[in-house]
Amino acid sequence: MKKDRFVFFDNINTTFPDPMVVEVVDKVLTSRLGNPSSHVHSAGINAGRIIDEARESVSALINAPAESIVFTSGATESNNLAITGFLKANPGYQLAVSMIEHFSIINQFRLLQKEGIPAFLIDIEKNGSIDLNSLEEIVQKKQTLVSISYANPEIGTIQDLKSISEICSRHEGILHCDCTAAAGLLGIDVAGMGIDLLTLSAHNMYGPTGVGALYVDKKINISPLFAGGNQEDGKRPGTENIPGIAGMGVACRMVREDIGIWQKHLTALGKKLWQGLADSISFIHLTGHSEKRLPGHVSFWVEHVEGESLLLLLNMNGVMASSGSACSSNLKGKDESELVASHVLTAVGVPTDICAGSITFSLGKYNTEEEVDYVVSIMPGIVEELLAMSPSYEDYKKGKESFHG
Amino acid sequence: MKKDRFVFFDNINTTFPDPMVVEVVDKVLTSRLGNPSSHVHSAGINAGRIIDEARESVSALINAPAESIVFTSGATESNNLAITGFLKANPGYQLAVSMIEHFSIINQFRLLQKEGIPAFLIDIEKNGSIDLNSLEEIVQKKQTLVSISYANPEIGTIQDLKSISEICSRHEGILHCDCTAAAGLLGIDVAGMGIDLLTLSAHNMYGPTGVGALYVDKKINISPLFAGGNQEDGKRPGTENIPGIAGMGVACRMVREDIGIWQKHLTALGKKLWQGLADSISFIHLTGHSEKRLPGHVSFWVEHVEGESLLLLLNMNGVMASSGSACSSNLKGKDESELVASHVLTAVGVPTDICAGSITFSLGKYNTEEEVDYVVSIMPGIVEELLAMSPSYEDYKKGKESFHG
Repeated sequence: MKKDRFVFFDNINTTFPDPMVVEVVDKVLTSRLGNPSSHVHSAGINAGRIIDEARESVSALINAPAESIVFTSGATESNNLAITGFLKANPGYQLAVSMIEHFSIINQFRLLQKEGIPAFLIDIEKNGSIDLNSLEEIVQKKQTLVSISYANPEIGTIQDLKSISEICSRHEGILHCDCTAAAGLLGIDVAGMGIDLLTLSAHNMYGPTGVGALYVDKKINISPLFAGGNQEDGKRPGTENIPGIAGMGVACRMVREDIGIWQKHLTALGKKLWQGLADSISFIHLTGHSEKRLPGHVSFWVEHVEGESLLLLLNMNGVMASSGSACSSNLKGKDESELVASHVLTAVGVPTDICAGSITFSLGKYNTEEEVDYVVSIMPGIVEELLAMSPSYEDYKKGKESFHG
Repeated sequence: MKKDRFVFFDNINTTFPDPMVVEVVDKVLTSRLGNPSSHVHSAGINAGRIIDEARESVSALINAPAESIVFTSGATESNNLAITGFLKANPGYQLAVSMIEHFSIINQFRLLQKEGIPAFLIDIEKNGSIDLNSLEEIVQKKQTLVSISYANPEIGTIQDLKSISEICSRHEGILHCDCTAAAGLLGIDVAGMGIDLLTLSAHNMYGPTGVGALYVDKKINISPLFAGGNQEDGKRPGTENIPGIAGMGVACRMVREDIGIWQKHLTALGKKLWQGLADSISFIHLTGHSEKRLPGHVSFWVEHVEGESLLLLLNMNGVMASSGSACSSNLKGKDESELVASHVLTAVGVPTDICAGSITFSLGKYNTEEEVDYVVSIMPGIVEELLAMSPSYEDYKKGKESFHG
């Protein structure tokens, strides 16, 4: 990597903890706290207070009562608790998820379907928006648990949650919303938006990894995923991740205070980045919605250019970005054929013959205009270099039809 | 609480993170790490290296290969992954657990039994040791998953794992061992001891809360508890708790280096404490094994003295201890009748009419001889105070038979 450069444009997969988060984690670790379940002594009571305070802060971010927040080990666990936990406690429901959900949702869908639970995929449009007709067709048949992410991490599209929740409630459906990618960037109001279950992840909003939360509306019963003690109102047994929970509390407070500033900053940077790339690179295609997308999220593919190679060359130039969901690159050899063409890109109809992977630049609050200028300045050269090595581009130059044309 | 006193004798329920653990957590949080699944860039690769290093350290503590370690969110999750995860992947096995296991084991036992899995409780002796005949009677019938904790947190008894594992392997049983309480105090060698699955918890050995591990012998298949990405070799999906895992790695390295010093220190303190209490308090009874017990672990009950009240008065004097497992006091109203008489005390045959709760003093590496002297000096007065308020002691004085007699 270029020694003088460290441009982190992969904030959708994780963010760097804010200094105030680091401070509270350190404070918790050095405060001689007991086990929060040890109610009988001061050290235990002090630990419980830290969790209570964090719970207030997390619930305030989404306009929910504190007692509706269940702390978990992260988004994957929250998504499993929401779907599997709900269906275990509420037999008779069918399941509907969109085609572009995270692996923790898609793989649950597959498992539950195998176990005999009626499960349906909701169509999406080319811009990544939920096809509302497809949704209504499914939910009108039977009581349904619907799981949809507020914003898609790979292509940035923001869903019209208001319309989605209206359709759900019209047919007595239950709406789970994975807000892993959205929570640090978009305002959330569970009451106003009609959301019943909601997933939050700390490390996607400047908190630590290893901690998340599930909002559970008070009218809803869920079964815990583990057997054990009665922590988290019986919904999530196990000694609490006290430093992580405290860090998440601070992270949520900061989102609430600063989200307006971040949105403005990131929207401007994202626009500048995309404009710069679109002006200097031929055959580049934005993925996702052109307007309704996460601030600072620029996802695209370039005809004939292999995504993975582009990421490697970017990294050699000190720029870190991603291709598909972070989890996908970890599926070493397991479903590789499926993953070379990301399930999200396939769903939005990207042509697999001419698209060899997409890139996601996801900016965060620490990124600067100067970094955007730098990336815009190096990208055309990198794309040229890769095109010169691309066999499919060779074919194209020899007269094959271009998708772009 | 007395302003000048902070005597933490509740190390069995949690320990205070070592300064070196705090340091590594801080370093991880400020190192601008990516998501470990982002293999395509340096920030992700650096995160992966931290996890690899911790995995080496954790595996070295129990003499296992690094690839056999699965990081989890703690002991409760590890225990669930071991039992439910094993039985899901290996249908046809029956389950056997001892009567004095943690709630995360006992409550799984109840659930799985309800779901139709043949499940048996192994008898224990009055000193808390596994009844080996009872074990063999169960495992000789059919292939069995046996779950036994190396040492019991409430009464301190250490099990004879060698004999237990010999019985298991004689009948092709699989042995899971919950080492939450033992790992920081007793040496563990999974190969030498014949253990197939083993639970570790970081916060019970001077690491942070919210992180644990499960050792899984390479011959064993387990099913993950969550659906999601392919982290932890597919056994535990979800973005890794990087600061927690790094903290656990350092904690395990320190146990390996210092366990001999701690054992000596804690054995001496524990002996001094029990001797001091036995010499100055009438009608006091040690629970658990008199010899084979955790270093620095002193558990007892005093006739006619209510455990909870004793803990409250101790806390007012700056001394923090526990009664039963930490999780039990959290079961607000749920199974209270059952919990007033701890399932562990009932199993070891403590008479519920005359025993109103037990106390566990569990010492840790930070505790001093001076603290032991202080506790020994205040205990007789506190016991006197409680006896003066005890109706059953009144009855006893009026001529009822004493259990102690």
